[in-house]
Amino acid sequence: MTTHKYDPQFTQAVINATGPKATPRIRQITASLIQHLHDFTRENDITIDEWMAGLELMNEAGRMSDDRRNEGQLVCDVFGLETLVDEITYKLASDAKDEPTATAILGPFYRHEAPQLNMGDCIVSGIESTDRTWMHGTVTDFLSGKPIEGAVLDVWHTAPNGLYEQQDPNQPDMNLRGRFTTGKDGKYNFYCLRPVPYPIPYDGPAGKILQALDRHPYRPAHIHFLIKAPGYKPIVTQIFDRQSKYLEDDAVFAVKDSLIVDFVPYQGDPQAEFELHYNFKMATFEDAKKHSVAGTTTESATSLGSKI
Amino acid sequence: MTTHKYDPQFTQAVINATGPKATPRIRQITASLIQHLHDFTRENDITIDEWMAGLELMNEAGRMSDDRRNEGQLVCDVFGLETLVDEITYKLASDAKDEPTATAILGPFYRHEAPQLNMGDCIVSGIESTDRTWMHGTVTDFLSGKPIEGAVLDVWHTAPNGLYEQQDPNQPDMNLRGRFTTGKDGKYNFYCLRPVPYPIPYDGPAGKILQALDRHPYRPAHIHFLIKAPGYKPIVTQIFDRQSKYLEDDAVFAVKDSLIVDFVPYQGDPQAEFELHYNFKMATFEDAKKHSVAGTTTESATSLGSKI
Repeated sequence: MTTHKYDPQFTQAVINATGPKATPRIRQITASLIQHLHDFTRENDITIDEWMAGLELMNEAGRMSDDRRNEGQLVCDVFGLETLVDEITYKLASDAKDEPTATAILGPFYRHEAPQLNMGDCIVSGIESTDRTWMHGTVTDFLSGKPIEGAVLDVWHTAPNGLYEQQDPNQPDMNLRGRFTTGKDGKYNFYCLRPVPYPIPYDGPAGKILQALDRHPYRPAHIHFLIKAPGYKPIVTQIFDRQSKYLEDDAVFAVKDSLIVDFVPYQGDPQAEFELHYNFKMATFEDAKKHSVAGTTTESATSLGSKI
Repeated sequence: MTTHKYDPQFTQAVINATGPKATPRIRQITASLIQHLHDFTRENDITIDEWMAGLELMNEAGRMSDDRRNEGQLVCDVFGLETLVDEITYKLASDAKDEPTATAILGPFYRHEAPQLNMGDCIVSGIESTDRTWMHGTVTDFLSGKPIEGAVLDVWHTAPNGLYEQQDPNQPDMNLRGRFTTGKDGKYNFYCLRPVPYPIPYDGPAGKILQALDRHPYRPAHIHFLIKAPGYKPIVTQIFDRQSKYLEDDAVFAVKDSLIVDFVPYQGDPQAEFELHYNFKMATFEDAKKHSVAGTTTESATSLGSKI
């Protein structure tokens, strides 16, 4: 309980309104949310004008959100909230010998049902570029080191203009997206582009917040992955170009050291100017549970897919 | 700073991203908001699934909000947030000899440009009722007790079916709403209905939250007022029927003792079954400032009008 100049019983009265049939988890989360929201409001003497301005931002974010855009998520992202729940959901205890691939936020641009492609295919369509990249590696079990068969790599990144295909009427549907399924050797390879830094959409509430905070909207160059394999905990992550600007001040705070990679100049392949090698290490549900922090729901990333 | 098992530097890093050109107030509010949101998220080990569920509720609230409905506001209301900012914005220091009329939340059903009526007019149209009420009183300066000329009482309440006119296709536009302007004597009088308890809209996120919390959606019977007068601080308030259910457990926590009134059986007037006498006491901007708490913006209720 905070002491303050306002009615000292009000917050508890609101919390106590919860009825007996609420689940323990809902009861706990809501009590804590009410306490923090009220403490925030009192500690800053938030006025009606300020509350209405915040409320209107949130309503506007909801109105802008649909199948192609999630502005509410973007607002959370600029406050570091998605990165934080990512950490909470996926963090492994530090006593793990080795660690699975680190996770990073899904972001608001994931789309279901990206094209199912064959190894060696190219996800780039209708774009001239000298940043063509051959990406390859192996998906392994993080403990045994054995290759994982049947792992599906769902990959997506922006065009050189900084736009995902659903933001850009000039790109073909599902451009720069693809799903690749590993065979017995756990290996994958495909052609993509070396990505570029880009600004997150700046025309809505998230942009207004960044502007008010005197912050830039740029993300460092990155490629997104959602990796699933039978019996393994899905991995949601991003890999970042070590040469990119904004690694230190990503607008959505998603960069982790272990996810920074090198695009190496590549010769002798008419389809690529760069090579990128990266191995993904996955944990079985059981191993993940054994090493993971309290509160982790093993189905998170799976069910997440159906909610975006 | 809280101690916890997650990256201890993350929250400060997000706060530190704010640039030098952010205003001091924005900087303060945002730092506090980020700290509370992150603390809430960590203390409850919020998972991606839970965050996405909350996010989808907020996006849905935004999508439902338009000129006629503010679902985001309703979500705030069931968490007691509007009542709290009302307290913070309007509270007078306790050493005031007498006090202006207590305030209560505006709620999401206020409409601009209610009909300008004459004293003695009736705001009820097309409704048969035996709860017709003659309401009257005086608008005075809370310190001098003198009547205030030119005070505009903006009044609104629901029909006996519990619906405001904009929620109900069977009511005429602007039914049960009116604006009355006092003359030199500061007196007002008009005909309305004795209101009924009603459930707040239950078909959106606010309803889902109440359901999850095992709470009922009812508000006690009340009449809304927004009162403005030249030189005086506007009053946003509600008066509540002492005989009503839900005075103790208003779904939006807006009831205050000084706002509970008596509808008295009334004889000899063919237009009314009840009489309701209530005096409104206003403070000049100067007096309000003298007695008010830090953080009050004197223009709140005025500018508020233009934001809904």
